[in-house]
Amino acid sequence: MKKFEEKTVRSERIYEGKIINLKVDDVTLPNGKETKRELVEHPGAVAVIALTDDRRIVMVEQYRKALERSIVEIPAGKLEPDEKPEICARRELEEETGYTAEKLSHVQSFSTSPGFADEVIHLYAAEGLSKTSEGATEEDEFVELIEVTFEEAEKMMEDGRIYDAKTAFAVLWAKAEWSK
Amino acid sequence: MKKFEEKTVRSERIYEGKIINLKVDDVTLPNGKETKRELVEHPGAVAVIALTDDRRIVMVEQYRKALERSIVEIPAGKLEPDEKPEICARRELEEETGYTAEKLSHVQSFSTSPGFADEVIHLYAAEGLSKTSEGATEEDEFVELIEVTFEEAEKMMEDGRIYDAKTAFAVLWAKAEWSK
Repeated sequence: MKKFEEKTVRSERIYEGKIINLKVDDVTLPNGKETKRELVEHPGAVAVIALTDDRRIVMVEQYRKALERSIVEIPAGKLEPDEKPEICARRELEEETGYTAEKLSHVQSFSTSPGFADEVIHLYAAEGLSKTSEGATEEDEFVELIEVTFEEAEKMMEDGRIYDAKTAFAVLWAKAEWSK
Repeated sequence: MKKFEEKTVRSERIYEGKIINLKVDDVTLPNGKETKRELVEHPGAVAVIALTDDRRIVMVEQYRKALERSIVEIPAGKLEPDEKPEICARRELEEETGYTAEKLSHVQSFSTSPGFADEVIHLYAAEGLSKTSEGATEEDEFVELIEVTFEEAEKMMEDGRIYDAKTAFAVLWAKAEWSK
């Protein structure tokens, strides 16, 4: 797992923000040459593929400033410092959708942009949902709950309303695992 | 697609780099309050799910400084200015693996980290592969070619050698589409 390792020679912190930091590292390549790596630090996140009793996938629509439009995604959120991913998954599911889950299981963890960011998303599947609240999103968080069939989710991937990697993965996974 | 739109009030450029830029925008939320959005600009990328005639998926192993380890991914690369994604997909496939493809088709495009980055990956499927060279990776690019069966790819997702969103999506997609 250290094949072609790049050792850090110098590291310069460019920016420390609310959610991300940016640093630029000078690294030594396997051939001895030096190059620069621009690296975004992110706390990591969780996302939840939640199935309702009537076999719909729970989604949220929200505006994504980076894309300058709103998209439909599975519920997700950033890890708090020292927070266990499973705890975070339950918290974010309830905050964004008002659902609690009887059964929560880890599906996959993956890096979103390994070329420039250390963000890892821990993906969980949630079943046995109960509506315990109307959802209590954080102040200044604007999301709208949508529950979609597998067929509607696939159409949304085609028309671009679903447009992010974790949700695209989730739709394929749900179809493979839950349509058997 | 503009639901909950956040209008930019001010935009500050923090960093302009080789691959990414960073800006911080002050935006107006739907309730009229202001907040900050930290936004990474990226040129976008392509990735290729390539199937060999003996039904293996073409992968490359490379070191990812952001993760401080090497991982196994489908071939991918950044878009050059004004480059069409399909042209880029053919170029990156040949550069990284030495393969050209008789048939190339668009699978899906998705944002990798919509919370903080505008990077979009255009994913293609390649079939009818011919080895035309040994691969001519760019100078100072270190990648190792690996060809894996669908079962080996799934094991690599379990043990974490495959660890990024585009490749995780690709493995599920290949199994769903090419194992029928």
